Amino acid sequence: MDTELDDLVQALRCLPGVGGKSARRMALHLLERDREGARRLARAVDAAVENIGHCSVCRTLTSAETCERCLDPDRDDQVLCVVESPGDVMAIEAATDFNGRFHVLLGRLSPLDGIGPEELGLDRLEERLRQQGTEELILATNTSVEGEVTAHYLAEMAGRLGIRATRIAQGIPSGGELEYTDAGTLAHALSGRRDY
Amino acid sequence: MDTELDDLVQALRCLPGVGGKSARRMALHLLERDREGARRLARAVDAAVENIGHCSVCRTLTSAETCERCLDPDRDDQVLCVVESPGDVMAIEAATDFNGRFHVLLGRLSPLDGIGPEELGLDRLEERLRQQGTEELILATNTSVEGEVTAHYLAEMAGRLGIRATRIAQGIPSGGELEYTDAGTLAHALSGRRDY
Ligand SMILES: [Zn+2]
Ligand SMILES: [Zn+2]
Repeated sequence: MDTELDDLVQALRCLPGVGGKSARRMALHLLERDREGARRLARAVDAAVENIGHCSVCRTLTSAETCERCLDPDRDDQVLCVVESPGDVMAIEAATDFNGRFHVLLGRLSPLDGIGPEELGLDRLEERLRQQGTEELILATNTSVEGEVTAHYLAEMAGRLGIRATRIAQGIPSGGELEYTDAGTLAHALSGRRDY
Repeated sequence: MDTELDDLVQALRCLPGVGGKSARRMALHLLERDREGARRLARAVDAAVENIGHCSVCRTLTSAETCERCLDPDRDDQVLCVVESPGDVMAIEAATDFNGRFHVLLGRLSPLDGIGPEELGLDRLEERLRQQGTEELILATNTSVEGEVTAHYLAEMAGRLGIRATRIAQGIPSGGELEYTDAGTLAHALSGRRDY
């Protein structure tokens, strides 16, 4: 195959979920049908890599020093939602009308990988909790083992500061069938039952 | 969402098969986990758009004036395989050991869309057939209605030049089940039957 075409196909494979076949399809599409889109893509990738860093307050991805959410005076300072990654912030914003503040850990506690409270910058989070007048800390880390460990650690931190900690609910996903639900999820769903 | 991050997400949507959700996932992946890959991608897209055009002989995509296949002295000049797009060339090369020459139409005859023999540069193909000493013209256009019309037209051209024209076989795909095969395919499979 032509070297530059092959370079493009290989470069496209750095995208998640893109194997050899779809990289080839993408390269051909860009070259045969959308060269303007290709140029725009190259510029957007360059600009993003150059300018996007982490918010100085909440650590989500932003091209500004402080992100729009942290600057927005209309958000509720009393509720702080802790998540693992910037993608979690987007997912929550897309699915809910949550209007408090966010804090992005950019990871999770994982002692085996050498990721402790310091590596996650939890001192900064504690500082934020003290200064911002937070009344509720929503623990929205993943429901993986490490996400749970992280939530547990943060709940203790909140307790020391006299702040209420809440954990996102675990249970059967919408449209899920009990018969095909794993045991851990089913146990959570049952123990977390509510009056109907 | 951050404007530059949103620009990146929107730009990624120009890729085929990439909707809003996977564009978001790709953008986050590039920014959080593979900034080097992102830079490489931007460079490869720019270089490809800048340098890749069509081969002066066969019209496939290449960054050279004439592609490697056309320059290769070891390929068989007597067999010329006509396809609709550069992707077809790649697919045939990946799946077979075909070692003749290719000709890429960059389209198909489609009178309704104003695409006739002239728009497909079929005069150039005829010129090639005369000069190259082609003995077999393999009609590897798609098995769509327009691909069939194109194959029919090319077969007549070959006939006038005293060149044998062959058409790629149509039938049940490998692993396919007769019961779930459409009528047109089944008819082709039956009429194209061979001694066993
Ligand atoms: Zn922020
Ligand atoms: Zn060529």
